[in-house]
Amino acid sequence: MTVPVDLNCDMGESFGRYTLGQDEEVLPYVTSANIACGYHAGDPMVMDKSVRQASQNGVGIGAHPSYPDLQGFGRRPMNLGEEELKNFLIYQIGALHAFARVHGCRLQHVKIHGALSLMAATDAGIADVAAQSIAAVDPEIIFLAQAGSEMNRAGQDKGLKIAREFFADRNYDREGNLLSRKHPEALVKDREKTVERTVRALHESVVITPEGERVKLEGVDTVCIHGDSPEAASFAYDLRNGLEREGVNVKPLGEFVV
Amino acid sequence: MTVPVDLNCDMGESFGRYTLGQDEEVLPYVTSANIACGYHAGDPMVMDKSVRQASQNGVGIGAHPSYPDLQGFGRRPMNLGEEELKNFLIYQIGALHAFARVHGCRLQHVKIHGALSLMAATDAGIADVAAQSIAAVDPEIIFLAQAGSEMNRAGQDKGLKIAREFFADRNYDREGNLLSRKHPEALVKDREKTVERTVRALHESVVITPEGERVKLEGVDTVCIHGDSPEAASFAYDLRNGLEREGVNVKPLGEFVV
Amino acid sequence: MTVPVDLNCDMGESFGRYTLGQDEEVLPYVTSANIACGYHAGDPMVMDKSVRQASQNGVGIGAHPSYPDLQGFGRRPMNLGEEELKNFLIYQIGALHAFARVHGCRLQHVKIHGALSLMAATDAGIADVAAQSIAAVDPEIIFLAQAGSEMNRAGQDKGLKIAREFFADRNYDREGNLLSRKHPEALVKDREKTVERTVRALHESVVITPEGERVKLEGVDTVCIHGDSPEAASFAYDLRNGLEREGVNVKPLGEFVV
Amino acid sequence: MTVPVDLNCDMGESFGRYTLGQDEEVLPYVTSANIACGYHAGDPMVMDKSVRQASQNGVGIGAHPSYPDLQGFGRRPMNLGEEELKNFLIYQIGALHAFARVHGCRLQHVKIHGALSLMAATDAGIADVAAQSIAAVDPEIIFLAQAGSEMNRAGQDKGLKIAREFFADRNYDREGNLLSRKHPEALVKDREKTVERTVRALHESVVITPEGERVKLEGVDTVCIHGDSPEAASFAYDLRNGLEREGVNVKPLGEFVV
Repeated sequence: MTVPVDLNCDMGESFGRYTLGQDEEVLPYVTSANIACGYHAGDPMVMDKSVRQASQNGVGIGAHPSYPDLQGFGRRPMNLGEEELKNFLIYQIGALHAFARVHGCRLQHVKIHGALSLMAATDAGIADVAAQSIAAVDPEIIFLAQAGSEMNRAGQDKGLKIAREFFADRNYDREGNLLSRKHPEALVKDREKTVERTVRALHESVVITPEGERVKLEGVDTVCIHGDSPEAASFAYDLRNGLEREGVNVKPLGEFVV
Repeated sequence: MTVPVDLNCDMGESFGRYTLGQDEEVLPYVTSANIACGYHAGDPMVMDKSVRQASQNGVGIGAHPSYPDLQGFGRRPMNLGEEELKNFLIYQIGALHAFARVHGCRLQHVKIHGALSLMAATDAGIADVAAQSIAAVDPEIIFLAQAGSEMNRAGQDKGLKIAREFFADRNYDREGNLLSRKHPEALVKDREKTVERTVRALHESVVITPEGERVKLEGVDTVCIHGDSPEAASFAYDLRNGLEREGVNVKPLGEFVV
Repeated sequence: MTVPVDLNCDMGESFGRYTLGQDEEVLPYVTSANIACGYHAGDPMVMDKSVRQASQNGVGIGAHPSYPDLQGFGRRPMNLGEEELKNFLIYQIGALHAFARVHGCRLQHVKIHGALSLMAATDAGIADVAAQSIAAVDPEIIFLAQAGSEMNRAGQDKGLKIAREFFADRNYDREGNLLSRKHPEALVKDREKTVERTVRALHESVVITPEGERVKLEGVDTVCIHGDSPEAASFAYDLRNGLEREGVNVKPLGEFVV
Repeated sequence: MTVPVDLNCDMGESFGRYTLGQDEEVLPYVTSANIACGYHAGDPMVMDKSVRQASQNGVGIGAHPSYPDLQGFGRRPMNLGEEELKNFLIYQIGALHAFARVHGCRLQHVKIHGALSLMAATDAGIADVAAQSIAAVDPEIIFLAQAGSEMNRAGQDKGLKIAREFFADRNYDREGNLLSRKHPEALVKDREKTVERTVRALHESVVITPEGERVKLEGVDTVCIHGDSPEAASFAYDLRNGLEREGVNVKPLGEFVV
C-alpha cells in the first residue's frame, strides 16, 4: 500500500492593492492551502479568490489565523489573554469557514501563522487555547502543526485530528527541532535530498541530522512549502514529482488524516 | 390562534475599552439580538460575550454586518463594488456564525447596519447583493429588514426566509415609508400607542399616518427596539408587556418565520 | 517665592461613536492635557476638539502616544524594534503637533501611554528611544514621566526638558516606586492628605511610606490626575484648591520647566 | 532666462510586509516626492525611509494624504463631513511634517491622493477644505494640483503657494481636462512627444489636443510621473534628460514656486 502525504503552502496573503506570493503558480502542485484570514494579511476579496482557486485545483482549504497585526504581518509576538486569543482565533476561522461554505467546500484544516505559531509550538497553554478554539468551531477540522510540537499534543488532547508537519528543506537537530535559520546547515538546498528526506520520514519516521545521526520523528502527514520563497512553485513541482516517482501518494489531508 | 411577533435590538456594539448600549438591561425583554461583527463596532471579545448572553436569555442570534468603518460607526455611505460588498458581508456573517456554533446555537438571522442598510432599503442592486451573501453562507438564515424595503423583496427573490420589520415608535407616511427623523411628528412617544400600533399592524397589516390615513403594510414579523436610546430597556419592557397583555405571542423569529 | 506645580490629565480618549473620560469637567482644574494620538484612542476629530478645548482653558497641550493598539487601548505589551517604536512615536507626536499649530499653540509636552509607558519606566533602551523621538521632532518639547523613572533619566541624557511626575493619591515604597495597585495601602483616599503629600513633595522632595519612612524624591513638577476615574474632576478640584490654599502656584509645565 | 519645472512622483506606498512602487529607481530623476501618510498606504517605517531617501537625493518632501482606506488604497469615494475631512488631512500632514523635521528638511508641498483628489479637482467645497487644512498647518506649504482644478483655485483663495500640474503623457480635451483613460487617445506614449508637449506647455502655456486644437493652460510648474507604472523610472529619466537638453531647469518646487 502506498503511503500518503500532503503538501501545504501559505496563500491568500495579498491585501487590497498589495500583492504577495505566487498563489497561482504554486496551486497546481500543492494539496492544501493555508489561507490568511485578514489579521496578518488577506482581506475578504483575497479570501474569496483564494478559496475559489484552491477549490478549483482540488486543494484542501485551511484557515491560517494570526495575531491581529497587519502592519507587522503577524510576526511580532503579542501578549494576549487566553480568552482574547481564543476569540481572535474563532473570529478568523469563522470568517474563512464562511468562504469555504460559499464555494461548496468544507474547512479542511487550520494552521497557525507567524509569531503566534512559534509561541504555540512550545507553550502548552497557548497550544491548548489554539486546539480548543478549533474544536469549538468544528471538531472535524484538522489541526496542522509541526511534528512533535505542543500544538500536536494539544490537538490530540482535545480529540482533534492532527496533521504532523515535516520540513523537507530544513535540517533538524538531535532533539528533533529545526535548526535555527542562522545555522550554516539550516537549509537543505539539494532538491533530490528533500525528496529522499521526505521519503525516509514517511517510511521510517526518521530524519538524519547534519552530523549523520538518525532522529526519530512521530510521523509525517504534510510537508511545508514556503510560499514566500521565490522558488516556492519550482520546489513544490520538484518535490511532488520526486515523491510520486518514489510511489508516494500526494493528496489533501482531508483524504487520509483520521 | 395568537399572532406571534419578535422584538429585535442591536447589541454587542462595544469595542475594546469602549462600552456602548445597555445590552444586559435590554436582553430580558427582546427576542432577537442583532450583534455587531467588528466592522462598525464589536470585537471578538464582545461578540463572544454577546452571543453567550443572548443565548442564555433564549434570544435569537443575528449578525449585524456593516460597511468596514469603525471610526464612522458604519454611518458613512461608501461606494463599494458588488463583489467587495458581498465578500465583506460573507466575512462578517461567517465570523458571527462561528461564535454561534461555539455557543451551541445557530445563526437565526442577519440584519444590515447603518448606512449600508439605508442604501439597501431602496437600492435593488445592493439589496440583491445582501440577500445573495446571506443565501451563500446559509440559506436557512432569516433576512430581517424593514417591511416593504428592497431587502425584503430581494430576500424573497433569493428564496430566503424574510422577517418584516415594523417601527412601533415611528410614524409612517402615506407611501408606507418612515417619516424623516427631522419631521415634527417623526416619533410616537406614547407607550400605549406603540402597543396599539403594533397590534393593529399585526392583526390588520395597517399603520395610521399622523393625518389619520390608513396605510397598508405587507405584514409584520418583528419590531425594532433602538438599542442606542437610553430608554431602550424600558421601551422593550413596556412594549413586550403591552403586547402580551393583548394576547400577542412574543418570541424569536426562528420559532415562527418560515 | 512660591513653588510652581502642574496638574496633568489624560484626555481625548474618545473614538468615533465612543465617548470616554470627562474631559470637559476636568479641564477647568488641570493645567496640562495628555491627548491621545489615534493609536490607543482618539481620532482626528477628537484630537481637534481636545486641543481646542485645552487651549481655550489655558491648559498646556501634550501628546499621549502609545503602542498601535486601539482594540487593546494600548495596554498590551508589544515587542517592537527600536526603529519601529521610534517611528511610531514620531508619527503620533507629529500628528498632534499639527493640531496644536492649527489652534495657534505649541506642543508643550509628551507623556507616554499605557503598556509602553510601563516598559519605558524601567527599560533604559526603550526610554532612550522615547526621548530620542521627542528630541528629533522638537527639542523644546518637555518629556513628562514618573519621577525617578528611566524616562526622566533618558530625557536628561538627550538634553530634553523633563517634568517629574508625582502621584498624590498613591503610596510609594521605600525605593521610591509606586506600591502595586493590588497592595492594600496602594491608594491615598483622603483628599487632605493628597494635598499635604504634594506640598511635602514640592517643598522637601520627600514622600512618606505607609510605614512612616521618609523617602527622598528627586523633585516634582507635575501631579497626575487619573482621567479614567469617575472622581477625576472632583479630585482635580480639591487638589488644586488645596494646593493654592497652601500657596502653591498651579500652572502649566511650559511656564516653569526649563 | 531658463524656465524651471519640477517632476513629482508618488512614493512611500509600501506598507509593512508589502512593497509597492520603485521608489529607489525613480528618486534620482524626480525633484519632488508625494509621500503616503498611512491612510491609503505607507506606515511610519516607510514614511521615515521615504523622507530620508528623498532628502538624500535633494528631492522635495511632500505629504500625499488620502481618505482613510488602506484596504481600498484610497480609491473609493467616501462621504465625509467637512470637519472630518479637514481633520483627517491635518492629521496626515502633521505626521509627515514630523518626519521632515526629523530629517532636517521642511515640508515642501501637499498633493492629495486618489479618490479624494478626483473629488477635490471639481468640487469647490472639498477643494476649499483641502486648501484650508494645508494653510492651517503651515501657510508656507505649496499646494500641488492639476492645472485649472478647483484645488488650484482654492489654494489661491487661501493665499497658498500653488503648483500647477501637467500630465505630459496624457492627452487633454478642448476644455483643458484630461481625456478619460478609456479614450483611445488618452495616452501619449512617444517619449519625445512628452518632452515636446512639456516644453510647449512651459513656454507657451498651450497643449494640443488629439484633433490638433491649441488649448490654453494657465501655466505649469510640475509634471506628474506615475509611480505605479512599471516604466516610471525610465519615463522620468527620458523626460528629465529631454527637458534639460531643451534648456529647461528641472528642480524642486520649493526653489521656484512663490
